[in-house]
Amino acid sequence: MLLSRYLLPVSRETPSDAQIVSHQLMLRAGLVRQTAAGIYAWLPLGLRVLNNIARVVRQEQDRAGAIELLMPTIQAADLWRQSGRYDAYGPEMLRFADRHGREMLYGPTNEEMITALFRDCVRSYRDLPRTLYHIQWKFRDEVRPRFGVMRGREFLMKDAYSFDLTAEGGRASYDAQFTAYLKTFAALGLRAVPVRAPTGPIGGDLSHEFHILADTGESELFYDAALDDVDLTNPDAPARLRSLYAMEAEEHARVAHCPVPPERLASRRGIEVGHIFFFGTKYSDAMGLKVQGQDGTQVTPLMGSYGVGVSRLMGAIIEASHDSAGIIWPESVAPFDIGLINLRPDDAAVATACAGFEATLEAAGKSVLHDDREARPGEKFATMDLIGLPWQVTIGPKGLASGTVELKRRATGEKHEASLESVLAKFAE
Amino acid sequence: MLLSRYLLPVSRETPSDAQIVSHQLMLRAGLVRQTAAGIYAWLPLGLRVLNNIARVVRQEQDRAGAIELLMPTIQAADLWRQSGRYDAYGPEMLRFADRHGREMLYGPTNEEMITALFRDCVRSYRDLPRTLYHIQWKFRDEVRPRFGVMRGREFLMKDAYSFDLTAEGGRASYDAQFTAYLKTFAALGLRAVPVRAPTGPIGGDLSHEFHILADTGESELFYDAALDDVDLTNPDAPARLRSLYAMEAEEHARVAHCPVPPERLASRRGIEVGHIFFFGTKYSDAMGLKVQGQDGTQVTPLMGSYGVGVSRLMGAIIEASHDSAGIIWPESVAPFDIGLINLRPDDAAVATACAGFEATLEAAGKSVLHDDREARPGEKFATMDLIGLPWQVTIGPKGLASGTVELKRRATGEKHEASLESVLAKFAE
Repeated sequence: MLLSRYLLPVSRETPSDAQIVSHQLMLRAGLVRQTAAGIYAWLPLGLRVLNNIARVVRQEQDRAGAIELLMPTIQAADLWRQSGRYDAYGPEMLRFADRHGREMLYGPTNEEMITALFRDCVRSYRDLPRTLYHIQWKFRDEVRPRFGVMRGREFLMKDAYSFDLTAEGGRASYDAQFTAYLKTFAALGLRAVPVRAPTGPIGGDLSHEFHILADTGESELFYDAALDDVDLTNPDAPARLRSLYAMEAEEHARVAHCPVPPERLASRRGIEVGHIFFFGTKYSDAMGLKVQGQDGTQVTPLMGSYGVGVSRLMGAIIEASHDSAGIIWPESVAPFDIGLINLRPDDAAVATACAGFEATLEAAGKSVLHDDREARPGEKFATMDLIGLPWQVTIGPKGLASGTVELKRRATGEKHEASLESVLAKFAE
Repeated sequence: MLLSRYLLPVSRETPSDAQIVSHQLMLRAGLVRQTAAGIYAWLPLGLRVLNNIARVVRQEQDRAGAIELLMPTIQAADLWRQSGRYDAYGPEMLRFADRHGREMLYGPTNEEMITALFRDCVRSYRDLPRTLYHIQWKFRDEVRPRFGVMRGREFLMKDAYSFDLTAEGGRASYDAQFTAYLKTFAALGLRAVPVRAPTGPIGGDLSHEFHILADTGESELFYDAALDDVDLTNPDAPARLRSLYAMEAEEHARVAHCPVPPERLASRRGIEVGHIFFFGTKYSDAMGLKVQGQDGTQVTPLMGSYGVGVSRLMGAIIEASHDSAGIIWPESVAPFDIGLINLRPDDAAVATACAGFEATLEAAGKSVLHDDREARPGEKFATMDLIGLPWQVTIGPKGLASGTVELKRRATGEKHEASLESVLAKFAE
């Protein structure tokens, strides 16, 4: 992609209305623009990251056996009256009437709709267990939207819902999502702490939140420091993590006898990026979901729900991975694999070499953002550092004369000269 | 994908509330379920088709040089007051107030927002021309939603917007989208007629609608029959198509002297699937979009907008491609490439052969829906015909004993016996 034909409005100045570093960097790096309070447009670079995060989330959902569908953003209020949540939900729910005066709402979550849909699609025990998920825009009318996409009003969420015939099955579905979440965060370059959570307005009796540790997090966590040492690649990691103490401050304060000795009790701030619940028959009872059991009797399925903030994760990743020059994207979500800096677009040999480099790597399946603008080298370097692509390749007339280019790894700042061919071979492998 | 673990609620019965064949088949084949009047959930099979249509649309937009971003669904009313359309738009616009009483709306289209966004991101003539697009859910509160996703209320649309410094540039951007539309419809297996259109509430002075010919179309078209003979693979096709007479009935009735001799004037019904406009400075003037020109003066960019109904296209494709047994998907949008019918899931040799077939083709990048259910062969054949995958492969104990399977092409109904190896080789190539 030629930067001269792209839309990348970067800025050197820190926006005065952005309090936390991820919000500042998302604005400065041209990822998003606010279009109304807590509502954002995703500029081309930001959309690429958002799609990459969604891809990682989707991949782990698919691997866990969940099936993707897509529910609409607008729901009928009557659906929520069946569960009793229409009156209970509070002012975060955006409510309105359509042209015929029918009460509608912009879905903040989908327990009611998926339960009604499953009820209408499924008849028999043979159709269970199932975990269904979608990745869709939600709206929660936060009273004070802040921190950019971290606490926005319109946000992208993956929400999955499990349906099981037995409590053991429901627990297995819960565990599968728990594990999928750990894998998702690891694939995004994040370390998440699972925190035992109260179930709140969703209801039910088993729930975990997943927090990314960051000083700017809104939550204060108390947890067994042994959590930090759990090897996430170990198959026992999910069970081990669940066995270790971890609570949000408010819950921790309610615990009469903390099982963790004081010297092992860690306290850190965290960003909540996921929340999972097992709530049994709460919604299946309310919405009249029953299936025919193997013995001919009617069975009420047990359900869980599993949410991840896809757009919020972008902020969390930046909070966890940046330096004073800008963002440092993990390779799994970087908007482009390689930033190509053309030091002299007016030099025919350099321009030809850059065009060839871009074409060769794009043909090899890599994405390249090629800065071919007429601009000072310093500006080009600063832009590349700011937008945080994992690799930078700089081609200029001097190096080219001896067949070399400069390769820089954004995460470490390491630079070295290498032959054009060896750099091409490295990325095209 | 094992059908026994999927969610595919098919039905033999024609739903009484569906008037046109695409709506009937979308419900019967388990592609969608209505969740409120004119609002649909996309079941797993339907979502796969929707994503495939979006992929084709995206591919042709990218090839035409358009750049993807993503605007939110909810907009501030103030944005629409700047263009004067907030009061003009009528009851199809879904309006509401947020918890602070601020007037908001669910975007039915995005001219105002993209103009404001471009104004805030761009300063100089160097940043033009640009064509930006997004694929996002829109809401239009149809007074009588009908025909399934063809005239729904919440629908997926690709809308692109062009920004140019000159009228010639604007015309070139319009032509690029015109051509991209023809390529998109061709890639979807559709033949579209471009119809000269009045510009209506969007405004401006140049506009075309694209109609798919179908007896169930809501529009009546009059056009030069020479249109049917234009070779779309010819590079001159866009210019040739634009030069030929084509009008909707209402506009045609206003034409004093139709330039087409009566014997060459064709009349057919059509489904509108795209609408493009060039409207000059209408929105850039209203929203205060100016850039610094090459000579230092302020220039007001000229704009166009280009819409395609992504979810509506699913209905249009089915209207154009089905038979009495069900849907016939073009390969470019089929939810799975191959339907695998296991005639005897309880036979170990058959089950092993089917599992191997599925694994081999999935590894080769093909998608396979594997009907491993305990069900009668007739039900399996009927389901596969109904859901319309391009190819069906049937594996049963008799054929397997002699190393053969049955291969059926859905579009023609042709069947033949072939060796398992040759069928694998055919698809894995």
